[in-house]
Amino acid sequence: MNAIQYTVADLAERFELTFSGDGARVIHGVGTLAGAGPGQLSFLSNSRYAAQLAATRAGVVVLREENLAECPGAALVAEDPYVAYARIAALFERLPAAPAGIHPSAVVATGAQISASASIGPCCVIEDGAVIEDGAVLGPHCLIGEDCTVGAQSRLVSRVTLVTRVTLGKRVLVHSGAVIGSDGFGLAFDRDHWIKLPQLGGVRIGDDCEIGANTTIDRGAVDDTVLEEDVRLDNQIQIAHNVHVGAHTAMAGCAAVAGSAKIGRYCMIGGNAGVLGHLELTDRVTITAKSLVTHSIREPGEYSSGVPLQDNRQWRKNAARFKHLDEFARRLSALEKDRNNE
Amino acid sequence: MNAIQYTVADLAERFELTFSGDGARVIHGVGTLAGAGPGQLSFLSNSRYAAQLAATRAGVVVLREENLAECPGAALVAEDPYVAYARIAALFERLPAAPAGIHPSAVVATGAQISASASIGPCCVIEDGAVIEDGAVLGPHCLIGEDCTVGAQSRLVSRVTLVTRVTLGKRVLVHSGAVIGSDGFGLAFDRDHWIKLPQLGGVRIGDDCEIGANTTIDRGAVDDTVLEEDVRLDNQIQIAHNVHVGAHTAMAGCAAVAGSAKIGRYCMIGGNAGVLGHLELTDRVTITAKSLVTHSIREPGEYSSGVPLQDNRQWRKNAARFKHLDEFARRLSALEKDRNNE
Amino acid sequence: MNAIQYTVADLAERFELTFSGDGARVIHGVGTLAGAGPGQLSFLSNSRYAAQLAATRAGVVVLREENLAECPGAALVAEDPYVAYARIAALFERLPAAPAGIHPSAVVATGAQISASASIGPCCVIEDGAVIEDGAVLGPHCLIGEDCTVGAQSRLVSRVTLVTRVTLGKRVLVHSGAVIGSDGFGLAFDRDHWIKLPQLGGVRIGDDCEIGANTTIDRGAVDDTVLEEDVRLDNQIQIAHNVHVGAHTAMAGCAAVAGSAKIGRYCMIGGNAGVLGHLELTDRVTITAKSLVTHSIREPGEYSSGVPLQDNRQWRKNAARFKHLDEFARRLSALEKDRNNE
Repeated sequence: MNAIQYTVADLAERFELTFSGDGARVIHGVGTLAGAGPGQLSFLSNSRYAAQLAATRAGVVVLREENLAECPGAALVAEDPYVAYARIAALFERLPAAPAGIHPSAVVATGAQISASASIGPCCVIEDGAVIEDGAVLGPHCLIGEDCTVGAQSRLVSRVTLVTRVTLGKRVLVHSGAVIGSDGFGLAFDRDHWIKLPQLGGVRIGDDCEIGANTTIDRGAVDDTVLEEDVRLDNQIQIAHNVHVGAHTAMAGCAAVAGSAKIGRYCMIGGNAGVLGHLELTDRVTITAKSLVTHSIREPGEYSSGVPLQDNRQWRKNAARFKHLDEFARRLSALEKDRNNE
Repeated sequence: MNAIQYTVADLAERFELTFSGDGARVIHGVGTLAGAGPGQLSFLSNSRYAAQLAATRAGVVVLREENLAECPGAALVAEDPYVAYARIAALFERLPAAPAGIHPSAVVATGAQISASASIGPCCVIEDGAVIEDGAVLGPHCLIGEDCTVGAQSRLVSRVTLVTRVTLGKRVLVHSGAVIGSDGFGLAFDRDHWIKLPQLGGVRIGDDCEIGANTTIDRGAVDDTVLEEDVRLDNQIQIAHNVHVGAHTAMAGCAAVAGSAKIGRYCMIGGNAGVLGHLELTDRVTITAKSLVTHSIREPGEYSSGVPLQDNRQWRKNAARFKHLDEFARRLSALEKDRNNE
Repeated sequence: MNAIQYTVADLAERFELTFSGDGARVIHGVGTLAGAGPGQLSFLSNSRYAAQLAATRAGVVVLREENLAECPGAALVAEDPYVAYARIAALFERLPAAPAGIHPSAVVATGAQISASASIGPCCVIEDGAVIEDGAVLGPHCLIGEDCTVGAQSRLVSRVTLVTRVTLGKRVLVHSGAVIGSDGFGLAFDRDHWIKLPQLGGVRIGDDCEIGANTTIDRGAVDDTVLEEDVRLDNQIQIAHNVHVGAHTAMAGCAAVAGSAKIGRYCMIGGNAGVLGHLELTDRVTITAKSLVTHSIREPGEYSSGVPLQDNRQWRKNAARFKHLDEFARRLSALEKDRNNE
């Protein structure tokens, strides 16, 4: 393959940034401040790494104006270096080849509609009523079940399963192992055993969403489970039936949302955080890692639960006392009452 | 396909319910109280939704006698509307076609036994010693490993992997991405490195169990890992080696049970709750979401751990104090002693 | 197949152990102390099971010298019975047959290099630039993406996906459903929507690592995600981009490590424990189950967070008081001040 390369001046022009230093320097990849060499571009966004700037050997660094003076070589100045870096770095990404057409090992039902510009990889299975739109790419081992639609330019990396009645918008990216449209967990207890509630709804995923590896999204019991546009889910997230996630909300790995919860727009759900069923979170709510949301949240802001990590011996002593917290509160009140009566 | 439809009177007769209103009304699907139209059936079970009854446009509503007066249209009266709804709604479910026989793309070992009435989907792999009983359905991408049995009428939705020595009972439903019979996590530490313990047991799953998407169930180290009948596991649950789960127990998404724990019958394990290894939980124990069970439980009832969600600023102050709880307890006792000595 | 069997004397010689009792007894399998019969070997390592020794019917028991007197039959005496048992039990493991060569249903790109002694199972897909070294075994449904290497004697049980730029060392064991090399969760927020950061690094897994079922390991954003040798990961673990895990560290099921965290050597991370991003844990740190690590740890030892499980009614009372812990601390200090001023 041909090498991907750009000069510093090229990059400045293409992304409307100013540069300082050697504009003719050729860049062919990216690296960290500590690891990049003369042909690589790096960036400084997080002040945690500011100390590494002076010693960097990177060919060019994307940074804020305020850090320009400490930069030993060429620089590209950006208001938001992380955003600018994200755009530039995309130039150096090589996605796997995905030729239009259907791999001979794929199994495609006669009732499926597949755009001529879509790419269907080895060992994919496409069932009746499935629709694969223009430019969509399915890597190996994907299953597109009955009545599912993969929107234009969407990419299912590999081994993605859409079970039934799932609609993906445009430019949706789904990572390996994700299961979308599985049965919601609906059970009725009938005297001495469980009866299953059929899950008759579907899943609707908006444009520009990203779904992480081994994440699961169940289809609705009656209505649909919904992700609005630009929702970003990390790996191993569980979204139960009839959840509604507002646009631009992001969830970190292993978060879980129980049935019929409604999450607002621009929310941030931390790693392994949980939201109980039927709750509502307004827009712009942040939940820190491993917290459990047990009531609806009406005010934007940051919310947490949990207790701090400690040395196990100290922690054991404190944790044992937690079982007496209510008693302590009463004893404290009794002491205060005594004092006031003195 | 032909539409599925029933009159209200048909449904009343079939499910032994009484009805009020227009028995000749034709129902062809289900909907929520808020969303259903005149051709759809809805239900009222959770008092949370009672306010929606008066305004519903549903063709018929399954409800309790006590709610009948507020129902604007036809009604089906049931003692347990949720159970009655579950049964009725099953009429409207269309399962994917599953013709008997083996799809030509499936790979079947010569030593496998497959009932003529079983359905083996595209890209399935069936290894030596596997047994697939009457009427079992395997969707695409399933793997049935050596010495595994899929019981009669069981359904593996798609991409289900039975690794080795797994026996599924009758009418077991397994969702996409589940892995059953993987190696238990057995390690012995030998001076400066780990040695693996071979996992020589299997997994036995009882009749009528349901296993969620991307759930994992390890096989036993020596004896088997066991789920008794009618156990219901949601998505992304982890069941370690030699766990024993009693009949009719249900676990919500992302719960995890460590090795050799024994869970009773009719237990309810909340979402992302955990049970440590070698513990025993008696029958009818409920564990709330995200709790960690650190000791055996001998009495039926509901158990919890965790602290409440708060605004992050408030939470930080309280959480910091948790590290001094033992000290507080001592200081409180000292004050009480002083008072008593006065 | 032929039965696997050994005499007690054979086993003693092979593993350099002393034996007592009938050295000619034939052993053809393993069992628990409670369940083993006369042809089976059992072991006593955990004092939890010591009471079962006197009544065991096992043909031979691996145990410590100190327990020899209570053993009713033959015994093999070991300093560490668990390690000795692990070695012996491996004799009785039958791995699935894995003939060298490529199954006709596998799809192999012309640019892949596959050793003649490797075994590629049904429905595997091997992409360009992939390298499969000597004696490696890929079970059914594996995907080896571009520029991935599977080291010699490694075994991918089934349905393992290596996405891109993943290198597995020698003798690595990966269980079903694992996804290695998926995109890290890298996003930049640009005014009102998310921009994706391309994930240009890879994953390097050292020799003798084990990766559990449905575990996910993301590739690095710039540099690689790294597991040193003999790292042992249980099921459903999430390792984010650019994490570095030191040699011989073990993590139990559902643990999660956020981006760029650095875990030392010989650490033990408990089930469903979490480590926040960019933290460092020194060597020989143990984190108990479900704890959240929120700061770097410089001293070896055991660390915990969380509160104890209680009956839900008691727990509710205590948990409600947690929200006032800071206030309690102030009130306690005020009382002490009053006392001291008296």
